[in-house]
Amino acid sequence: MIDTNAIEAANEAAMKDLRADYDALGEHLDRRGISIDAIKAKVAGYGVAVPSWGVGTGGTRFARFPGAGEPRHIFDKLDDCGVIHRLTGATPSVSLHIPWDNAAPGDLLAKGEEVGLTFDAMNSNTFQDQNDQAKSYKFGSLSHTDAATRAQAVDHNLACIELGQKIGSKALTIWVGDGSNFPGQSNFTRQFERYLDSARSIYSGLPDDWRLFTEHKMYEPAFYSTIVQDWGTNYLIAKELGDRAFCLVDLGHHAPNVNIEMIVARLIQFGKLGGFHFNDSKYGDDDLDTGSIDPYRLFLVFNELVDATDVAGFDPAHMLDQSHNVTDPIESLMSSAMEVQRAYAQALLVDRVALVGYQDSNDALMASATLKRAFRTDVEPILAMARLDKGAAIDPVVAYRQSGYRAKVATLRPAVTGSGGGIV
Amino acid sequence: MIDTNAIEAANEAAMKDLRADYDALGEHLDRRGISIDAIKAKVAGYGVAVPSWGVGTGGTRFARFPGAGEPRHIFDKLDDCGVIHRLTGATPSVSLHIPWDNAAPGDLLAKGEEVGLTFDAMNSNTFQDQNDQAKSYKFGSLSHTDAATRAQAVDHNLACIELGQKIGSKALTIWVGDGSNFPGQSNFTRQFERYLDSARSIYSGLPDDWRLFTEHKMYEPAFYSTIVQDWGTNYLIAKELGDRAFCLVDLGHHAPNVNIEMIVARLIQFGKLGGFHFNDSKYGDDDLDTGSIDPYRLFLVFNELVDATDVAGFDPAHMLDQSHNVTDPIESLMSSAMEVQRAYAQALLVDRVALVGYQDSNDALMASATLKRAFRTDVEPILAMARLDKGAAIDPVVAYRQSGYRAKVATLRPAVTGSGGGIV
Amino acid sequence: MIDTNAIEAANEAAMKDLRADYDALGEHLDRRGISIDAIKAKVAGYGVAVPSWGVGTGGTRFARFPGAGEPRHIFDKLDDCGVIHRLTGATPSVSLHIPWDNAAPGDLLAKGEEVGLTFDAMNSNTFQDQNDQAKSYKFGSLSHTDAATRAQAVDHNLACIELGQKIGSKALTIWVGDGSNFPGQSNFTRQFERYLDSARSIYSGLPDDWRLFTEHKMYEPAFYSTIVQDWGTNYLIAKELGDRAFCLVDLGHHAPNVNIEMIVARLIQFGKLGGFHFNDSKYGDDDLDTGSIDPYRLFLVFNELVDATDVAGFDPAHMLDQSHNVTDPIESLMSSAMEVQRAYAQALLVDRVALVGYQDSNDALMASATLKRAFRTDVEPILAMARLDKGAAIDPVVAYRQSGYRAKVATLRPAVTGSGGGIV
Amino acid sequence: MIDTNAIEAANEAAMKDLRADYDALGEHLDRRGISIDAIKAKVAGYGVAVPSWGVGTGGTRFARFPGAGEPRHIFDKLDDCGVIHRLTGATPSVSLHIPWDNAAPGDLLAKGEEVGLTFDAMNSNTFQDQNDQAKSYKFGSLSHTDAATRAQAVDHNLACIELGQKIGSKALTIWVGDGSNFPGQSNFTRQFERYLDSARSIYSGLPDDWRLFTEHKMYEPAFYSTIVQDWGTNYLIAKELGDRAFCLVDLGHHAPNVNIEMIVARLIQFGKLGGFHFNDSKYGDDDLDTGSIDPYRLFLVFNELVDATDVAGFDPAHMLDQSHNVTDPIESLMSSAMEVQRAYAQALLVDRVALVGYQDSNDALMASATLKRAFRTDVEPILAMARLDKGAAIDPVVAYRQSGYRAKVATLRPAVTGSGGGIV
Repeated sequence: MIDTNAIEAANEAAMKDLRADYDALGEHLDRRGISIDAIKAKVAGYGVAVPSWGVGTGGTRFARFPGAGEPRHIFDKLDDCGVIHRLTGATPSVSLHIPWDNAAPGDLLAKGEEVGLTFDAMNSNTFQDQNDQAKSYKFGSLSHTDAATRAQAVDHNLACIELGQKIGSKALTIWVGDGSNFPGQSNFTRQFERYLDSARSIYSGLPDDWRLFTEHKMYEPAFYSTIVQDWGTNYLIAKELGDRAFCLVDLGHHAPNVNIEMIVARLIQFGKLGGFHFNDSKYGDDDLDTGSIDPYRLFLVFNELVDATDVAGFDPAHMLDQSHNVTDPIESLMSSAMEVQRAYAQALLVDRVALVGYQDSNDALMASATLKRAFRTDVEPILAMARLDKGAAIDPVVAYRQSGYRAKVATLRPAVTGSGGGIV
Repeated sequence: MIDTNAIEAANEAAMKDLRADYDALGEHLDRRGISIDAIKAKVAGYGVAVPSWGVGTGGTRFARFPGAGEPRHIFDKLDDCGVIHRLTGATPSVSLHIPWDNAAPGDLLAKGEEVGLTFDAMNSNTFQDQNDQAKSYKFGSLSHTDAATRAQAVDHNLACIELGQKIGSKALTIWVGDGSNFPGQSNFTRQFERYLDSARSIYSGLPDDWRLFTEHKMYEPAFYSTIVQDWGTNYLIAKELGDRAFCLVDLGHHAPNVNIEMIVARLIQFGKLGGFHFNDSKYGDDDLDTGSIDPYRLFLVFNELVDATDVAGFDPAHMLDQSHNVTDPIESLMSSAMEVQRAYAQALLVDRVALVGYQDSNDALMASATLKRAFRTDVEPILAMARLDKGAAIDPVVAYRQSGYRAKVATLRPAVTGSGGGIV
Repeated sequence: MIDTNAIEAANEAAMKDLRADYDALGEHLDRRGISIDAIKAKVAGYGVAVPSWGVGTGGTRFARFPGAGEPRHIFDKLDDCGVIHRLTGATPSVSLHIPWDNAAPGDLLAKGEEVGLTFDAMNSNTFQDQNDQAKSYKFGSLSHTDAATRAQAVDHNLACIELGQKIGSKALTIWVGDGSNFPGQSNFTRQFERYLDSARSIYSGLPDDWRLFTEHKMYEPAFYSTIVQDWGTNYLIAKELGDRAFCLVDLGHHAPNVNIEMIVARLIQFGKLGGFHFNDSKYGDDDLDTGSIDPYRLFLVFNELVDATDVAGFDPAHMLDQSHNVTDPIESLMSSAMEVQRAYAQALLVDRVALVGYQDSNDALMASATLKRAFRTDVEPILAMARLDKGAAIDPVVAYRQSGYRAKVATLRPAVTGSGGGIV
Repeated sequence: MIDTNAIEAANEAAMKDLRADYDALGEHLDRRGISIDAIKAKVAGYGVAVPSWGVGTGGTRFARFPGAGEPRHIFDKLDDCGVIHRLTGATPSVSLHIPWDNAAPGDLLAKGEEVGLTFDAMNSNTFQDQNDQAKSYKFGSLSHTDAATRAQAVDHNLACIELGQKIGSKALTIWVGDGSNFPGQSNFTRQFERYLDSARSIYSGLPDDWRLFTEHKMYEPAFYSTIVQDWGTNYLIAKELGDRAFCLVDLGHHAPNVNIEMIVARLIQFGKLGGFHFNDSKYGDDDLDTGSIDPYRLFLVFNELVDATDVAGFDPAHMLDQSHNVTDPIESLMSSAMEVQRAYAQALLVDRVALVGYQDSNDALMASATLKRAFRTDVEPILAMARLDKGAAIDPVVAYRQSGYRAKVATLRPAVTGSGGGIV
């Protein structure tokens, strides 16, 4: 639904300036002993998964303000995700959320092939009640006091694996909202024992070539305690379950002021970093566009990842997880994918030999300056050239707007009105 | 719908123990030079308004898990609020939220009289879109860049006043979610100028015997900036508008670690404390039951209020504002009303003459001990006896459960299933 | 230095009221099925260690304002600690800090016996440079990039053990300030590897009947990263070291909003809770008097401890760790010891059978109410009677002030003037 | 003490690369419609004051680890500050702290002229006790309960003005640590009334061409309440005092997650922004190097300042205020001055016409992208060329290290050993 000719026309208009910027940056990096083409190649090879749910307009408990052309189902969502990858060349896979995205595996595979996408980690949902559901998750799912409710939640996760196997996924991501809203409501220890029992049941159904990702979060939807409240508990889970269990880090799921890049380093060191849900936040789990609030923090996370490149078996999953309340979700996801690439490119520019020297000699100022120098290098020409090389858009947002895609789908997909009443 | 005989039967069973506890406490307080009956009289005279929206089960952006007998409209809600007051004797008024509670004024007054409730502050809603609404609040309401949208929001507030005048309300509370999710999205200054213009238009329509309350909140639903982000901005608004404009303090709307009782004191000192939305929180605007997380903080707020009793014209509005996700909302509101009373009773016990002496001599330890002594006094017998005296329940939750009210309304009100999909 | 006759005289004056309060509470608790004497016996048997450094006036980097009669050395400190125990009967042991408290073991033992105190955990200090020290800890100690500096820090810890063995201590507490102030200054992973190596060296020198406690802290003195930044890293350390390594929880060392009681529960569940440094805080590591800011949080911690009473081998160390900037340290430590006892007594009152029932049936409201009921019971008569029974003071602060102890030591110990310039 | 020939030699070596980078950036900016020379001229005209106390090694309450050649007095400090300006050309003035920097005015002026520096705002100190001081500030200064103590604090501020007048300063900055460590210790209202009385006395002694800056801070050294805890209280002070009273914003003095740039905008809008203490922080008042933790936040502050350029009478004071615990303070202050310039240069690059258009049309994505585009432009060549033009160093840190200045002063100034014991 994006016309290749239109992309090429837009690229044509921007190409001359891009070449000038790329050449100038190439010369500059050459003086720093860095090959711009080598960096470009790494950036070109980098991909981040998009979440199927991210292409719909998000909201808060107060309201949701849908935009035009909201996707109605997974096939609409895959169309939108396909546009993102077509224009950025940076998002080769989609992560599904079940039951929201339930569909016949063959249909999913066919649509995926049509839009040029594969399927990343499967996401289960035991934080909502479905209309046909026997047991309610109001008071928990994997850790519920009732064994039948726990069993239902376990079965759902196994069903996600089953579907995932049919569409080429290799991982299951579990995030639960289980916790409590009052001191005393739950016994922390017995609740966690129940969680671990359920998780073991899921893990025992995990195919040999799959990984299990568990995700911690400080709070929301539970507001006094959350069962997997931080990386400490998340690590305990991964350790209890086994070698194919890993911790997923969502950048917005931590206490205020927490040093997230250090958590990333610890999980790498102890072999339990499974991957990321990228986004940005200022207050809580704001699910804002990646890099929009604190781009240096994102860079520092990638600094750890690049630093760990040589760690044996190190292969974390990269996924966006955002809620787009005031923007066109396609535009936000494209921009965010590029922000992730940008942080990666900047981290690749760090002079690691010099850095180690400064660290060993406790030259804090020069160590900091070494990171800052890499960070402030404007790598946009590298990212744009990598896109151009693969037939994507030099400026994806411009090309997207010129394509008229949103207007087109708005005619095909029924409009949604009101803000749904909200859930105050 | 609550049988008086049942209340009396339950009270009968608990009365003997209560008398023993009350007498023992009376003797103890007498030794401290305090008349228990005088305290009881003040507690009996104290009331806190309940929010109409509080009697429905709340939720988060992830899900809402309705209970049995969810109220369908304002008349169901008034029934529920009537039960709360009938059993606690502590919540003589209800605060309406428009358009959720829109109805014919005569019908509201009649129902209010039926259930023994009057109408507290009116609450406008410009943070959601209604289906019949010309302009969307997706990008703001009172501060929207579009004049027609601002006018629509102003008109809605004036309509709230109009309805309020007909049902005996004397105040309008404005809370807006206006703000931004991205640095740069809004120009802080021009946005606030537009807000102030709109607020002035509303204020100019405020009847002479009304007060205007504006409410600050750090974040949510906006996640980068919120237009009335803290008491500083709230004070500026009240100051710009005029003598009948005041600041409303919601206990859950502040940055982490903020000293809320000090903000209360500052607003009192500068004549701009309008009132409270009571609740409790551990992380953000969690809207948990009042006093359930940090009861000492609640006491410290009431310590300021009791200290200001003699300030001329000091008459802040007291209202609960909570979201009940895992409890029966009626039970939570009853308990919370009693927690507010408890903090008030404890604050009345502070030996203020001694306290001033310790403050003047910088005896920090004894000043602290003076507050702690009042706080740790178990005033439950005073609260219970005040309830008993006015024909309410010694133990409202026990009486409520015995009454079978929830089961009764569950048969009258249709069940809601599923968790609404959530707004992730 | 505290006259027994004076204590008895003060007790005599307060005894009648205390008996009345105790009897009334006993009758009330009896109606709740609780034996007041059984609670009193448990409280009487409870003790918390005091920190030797706590009896001197504390300060901030901006200034320190000494009081009269500042202790000059460990023997003065032991006198002060003896007073605390004499009056409260609640602090039978002292925790030493080396090298601040270095002295001949025989002298320490003799003085301890004189003042009726034993020696709790030893505390090492590698966060300051001593004048005679070969290597500086400016850039770290156990994790320093320089092997000789690490060895010096290890040796110091071994020396602390050696001294501790001679005076009857059975534990070593390690807290280090190692970390970094700039992104990039330290490589998180290599820094932590060095820490673990050093910690293993210390652990290998730990006597069989000793325990090793490591303490986590989010920040300060390092302001970008701290090597043992949270309980997750602390747990990894205890796990790496062995069965006699445990995590120490200081209540003020966590990120804002963190649920500390849940961390306590997790560490108990995984067999790694070593003990506590009790204090209170509102912002950071404020080291305020225990229970002075959020007494309910303290109660919730003790609720976990009482809940774990039957866990095999569960025996956490209890210690105060506070900084007294505006009070007489002796008064603050006495009050804080009593606050710890208070939280313990309140936690003992929780109806655990009922609580489990509410938890199992997801009756969040009644579960919360069950804890609140215990918390709001004024247990002061129990604490006071326990003190009276053992010959301590009914009201230790009153007795202390009447004793004139501070004035006496002020004549013996030279006055300190100025605020030391501060370390801005 | 910095040899001009050495600077020139270092510049000579770096000049060719700088010219290439500058020319390439100039061409790039030209394509964006921006004149690089115009930006350079503005950067060259920009200066930030350095704090006299910043050139000594800082510390925490736990320890201070001095470096070589610590300045002994204000004249040593002025030598160090002179080096910073000599090499960066960005710090033309020094802010003194009294009594630390007390000296004969003539000597100060002479030394200032010698090292090429003028004198910025005067800073008073009533948060420490001096040895010769009649009244202690242990329990407060301007807000102390004792009138004589308040008078002493007022007199000290007036003395600071008197000295400042003699050396060409035009502003007094007041920061006090007054507050409390316990709930109840101080009556918020009466304490603030006393503060305002004292502040009025100082203000009445303010020369007509001076400004008074008051500084807010959330906490530390007071840990329960601080009298000027946030910008709300700070605004009230400035408003109460008069037209020459303004609010000073220190970037590290806010609650977690607070949107500082919005506070800056509010204070500008209401005519009360006095100026800044620049630094960076991750947890509390960490006083880290400006821009080292969150450079985008610094940019967003400057975005507000550039946006307000045309506001009548807008002339905020810019000052660094940092504590250098692990670096050579001269290097940190040089780097930080350049970071401030960098943020200013980036903010100058914002396409404000486009931004306003995006804001007016609620195009949040492009508004954000407009800021990000300016931020990610590497303006280092502009800063370096501005330095080169004025005879300063292309790379000040390199030139400083080559100069051997630190080693030279280390021979002249006595070494300090130990870490002073700390103030735990």
